[in-house]
Amino acid sequence: MRVVVDGMGGDYSPQAVVEGCVLAQNEYNVEIIITGPEELILKELEKYSYNKEKIKIVDAKEVISPNEAPVKALKTKKDSSMVKALQMVRDKEADAIISAGSTGAFLAGCTLIVKRIKGIDRPTLAPIMPGRKGAFMIADAGANADCKPHYLVQFAHLGKVYFESVLGINNPSIGLINIGAEEEKGNELTKEAHKLLKGESLNFVGNVEPRDIPTGEVNVLVCDGFVGNTALKMYEGVAGNILDELKEKIMGSTRTKIGGLLLKPVFKAFKKQYDYKEYGGAAFLGVNGICIKAHGSSDAKAFKNAIKQAKIFYDNKALDKMKDIFENQQGNNE
Amino acid sequence: MRVVVDGMGGDYSPQAVVEGCVLAQNEYNVEIIITGPEELILKELEKYSYNKEKIKIVDAKEVISPNEAPVKALKTKKDSSMVKALQMVRDKEADAIISAGSTGAFLAGCTLIVKRIKGIDRPTLAPIMPGRKGAFMIADAGANADCKPHYLVQFAHLGKVYFESVLGINNPSIGLINIGAEEEKGNELTKEAHKLLKGESLNFVGNVEPRDIPTGEVNVLVCDGFVGNTALKMYEGVAGNILDELKEKIMGSTRTKIGGLLLKPVFKAFKKQYDYKEYGGAAFLGVNGICIKAHGSSDAKAFKNAIKQAKIFYDNKALDKMKDIFENQQGNNE
Repeated sequence: MRVVVDGMGGDYSPQAVVEGCVLAQNEYNVEIIITGPEELILKELEKYSYNKEKIKIVDAKEVISPNEAPVKALKTKKDSSMVKALQMVRDKEADAIISAGSTGAFLAGCTLIVKRIKGIDRPTLAPIMPGRKGAFMIADAGANADCKPHYLVQFAHLGKVYFESVLGINNPSIGLINIGAEEEKGNELTKEAHKLLKGESLNFVGNVEPRDIPTGEVNVLVCDGFVGNTALKMYEGVAGNILDELKEKIMGSTRTKIGGLLLKPVFKAFKKQYDYKEYGGAAFLGVNGICIKAHGSSDAKAFKNAIKQAKIFYDNKALDKMKDIFENQQGNNE
Repeated sequence: MRVVVDGMGGDYSPQAVVEGCVLAQNEYNVEIIITGPEELILKELEKYSYNKEKIKIVDAKEVISPNEAPVKALKTKKDSSMVKALQMVRDKEADAIISAGSTGAFLAGCTLIVKRIKGIDRPTLAPIMPGRKGAFMIADAGANADCKPHYLVQFAHLGKVYFESVLGINNPSIGLINIGAEEEKGNELTKEAHKLLKGESLNFVGNVEPRDIPTGEVNVLVCDGFVGNTALKMYEGVAGNILDELKEKIMGSTRTKIGGLLLKPVFKAFKKQYDYKEYGGAAFLGVNGICIKAHGSSDAKAFKNAIKQAKIFYDNKALDKMKDIFENQQGNNE
């Protein structure tokens, strides 16, 4: 398997990217291509002992920054580490791409360069989140701010294949994020989506109220990208705020400081459990390639895990399974 | 001032309602009317020494349950504690209403019986939430699942008056909940609402990303009711989950149990800070009366604080201020 990694994406590029690639190559024996300024990437690589046959560099002199207008950046920076990497997937020179660069540019690039699976109207950004009782997926988490009801049905099928193939959970439960448990609750989108989901061959468990999302009792949660992004960012925001505030209060007195010390293993286990880095990146599902968006603040471990995620995706032929569903069973509804 | 309280609303009615009314009457010297089955309410009241001139009962034999279809329940249960209370506000026999009953029935009842302020298209459910740096409001938090852009402008003006009148914060900051900081980000609704909000005489600070909501740095957060309800319930859900999980982990070993004991004051202060009961209920703004939706699980303290909230609302003439804005300055846009 060949994975191309955008060498210049993310807050800690190229250092964290290169280190993650070396770690992953050693552990999973995949072929890795790193795009970016050749000299710079090589300088980083030479810090490690690595297999020169299995880690290659493809020179790319430009970098797309998160502040640039996505489509314009893709069109004008053909020699960027991100565009070069996307083109390799399009041209079948790589089986998967990982980037921690601009989310907007990466998602637009996947759609415009790698292109959609036939039958898919909108690909979906589908991160895996740590839940109390298990991992759960939010689809869509921000790629499509406005959705039509049948997009959510496509997200559900894509999420199902991902859960089965990558996480090994058979016939995962599918829920519709909604502001009420009853079928008739919600907005125009969710009322219609509920009806459509009921008619699909899915393990559809109905509406899931946002307060129940964090438990992880339902595997795949579908919604429009605005709601999904709101849920995702509230999750990060509230958890971060609470832990910061606890820390602040613990430092307030000697008694509580000692309590805090005794609880260190608890806080550590907690932090590990809520660590997105364990889950690699967010898959962008519905495009004709294995496309993984790593978190902007990814460290070497996160890149290593994203490569592992791409490998499991590849080994289990998840892309072919997705194509089978949409190219054969469902027409393009638009 | 006369406050009518739905004696049969909420999980702990009528006990918690009656106790809260007695506490509030003693402390704030308001006149209180409790609706509900006369004998039942009287039996509760007689547990306390209370001022019989200031707490009266209005007999209502029926109860609307949270499971009933709201509009149908309002129409068929004319002798319910909720409908009787709403009618008293409509007929100017009471200045404010508080109910912890069915949210759907209460909001529909406020709109259909108490009616909207002239110029308001959609009233908004506007709870106050505990933020790290201060309290914040979400408007709308669930009354309007689908919104037009100009509704959000109305929510902003209503929220501003509430913050100034009830919380004493002058010219509060107004933010638009959005999935990106830049003006052009978001869905069709937020893109258009952003343009409109910029043109208003408001302290509009732009988009607020969901991860920044819990800080409480921005006072009034406007959004459609689906997004607001999602944010609200994620807030409750994540906070609850984290605290439950910490507790579970603390019980895992002797060392951490001792740590947990030492940290008891921290957890207690934390719980108090995140206690919605301190804030009374969620005001339903834009109707022609002071209408407060108390949490379904309200205890006596929550009812007492909701009555206090209604009193501040009344004493500061917030309703007149809202009417001034909409009846004179803005036309009905629909």
